[in-house]
Amino acid sequence: MQSLKERIRKDGIVLPGNILKVGSFLNHQMDISLFNEIGREFARRFEGVPVSRILTIEASGIGIACIAAQYFNVPVVFAKKSKSRNVSGDALVTQVKSYTHDTTYEVMVSRDFLPAGESVLIIDDFLANGCALEGLVDLVRQAGSTVAGAGIVIEKGFQDGGARLRGRGVRVESLAIVDSMDAGGKITFREKS
Amino acid sequence: MQSLKERIRKDGIVLPGNILKVGSFLNHQMDISLFNEIGREFARRFEGVPVSRILTIEASGIGIACIAAQYFNVPVVFAKKSKSRNVSGDALVTQVKSYTHDTTYEVMVSRDFLPAGESVLIIDDFLANGCALEGLVDLVRQAGSTVAGAGIVIEKGFQDGGARLRGRGVRVESLAIVDSMDAGGKITFREKS
Repeated sequence: MQSLKERIRKDGIVLPGNILKVGSFLNHQMDISLFNEIGREFARRFEGVPVSRILTIEASGIGIACIAAQYFNVPVVFAKKSKSRNVSGDALVTQVKSYTHDTTYEVMVSRDFLPAGESVLIIDDFLANGCALEGLVDLVRQAGSTVAGAGIVIEKGFQDGGARLRGRGVRVESLAIVDSMDAGGKITFREKS
Repeated sequence: MQSLKERIRKDGIVLPGNILKVGSFLNHQMDISLFNEIGREFARRFEGVPVSRILTIEASGIGIACIAAQYFNVPVVFAKKSKSRNVSGDALVTQVKSYTHDTTYEVMVSRDFLPAGESVLIIDDFLANGCALEGLVDLVRQAGSTVAGAGIVIEKGFQDGGARLRGRGVRVESLAIVDSMDAGGKITFREKS
């Protein structure tokens, strides 16, 4: 998605450790016009694919998922990062490893809002090592539903999450795939993204 | 807002301790058509009021704020609930007391995304004791900006947050004010909400 790549080049900030800060438009301050472009592009890429529900994860996926849902006419549910081990019995729970914080946290969603027999599109802002996305895929499968695909805004193509999820048969559509970033702030995108 | 009150009566679940669960349409599963109605109603109520930015707080305010922002044509920024005491120097920070969890947590927003001289509309899903909303008002004032008002979906009118904030001069517009809930699930709304 060309306009997204241009925006990342213009307003993204590259920090040491392959960190890409896009808080000025994507995941802290949110540019709703851009979110609408993103939503339309997800709808274009998943045209013809049945989608009955969108699943995302708090917090930064929620805004993108809600705006995108307008182009699919489906409800959105967001998975919660649980701090407690005491999730009530009517919840689906999975474990997600966080490399950033060197810990494992629980992600939960109420069974009532992720029912069986649906075709679920997962939406999130970032895909890097893929642990969060794998957790969401696991929740959908626990629910007895099907993953229609995953719509990702920015994929770090130099980390292995995207390749691993695609290898497991998940259709991952990333609107901008970053293949490399250097200390001078130069960002190289994958051609086909 | 009549359709919202009807939806709360139909799908809200009253639990002991004056708890109102609206996870089926508002803050876990999200009905985006309803969010658009809510956004239009906020725009109607704040018509003629300058609004240059919407501020909300993670997680359940984000979806409502993003959909509502489409009717104001402004960016959204969400405040983050910080677990660490080490917030970087370019952030505005405030303390919020949580009666539910009997603790105090920090809420932060980057200075870059809550600049001075703006007219900020605060949006959130719930207003009860008002501590979260007071924290957001404090962040806006720290920033050197003005609070245009607060758009709240559901206010618990039997708790004192709304009265306290209005007493401090904040224009609070709540789309449904619950004056009482009883164990049988009966919900009484304030007439004028």
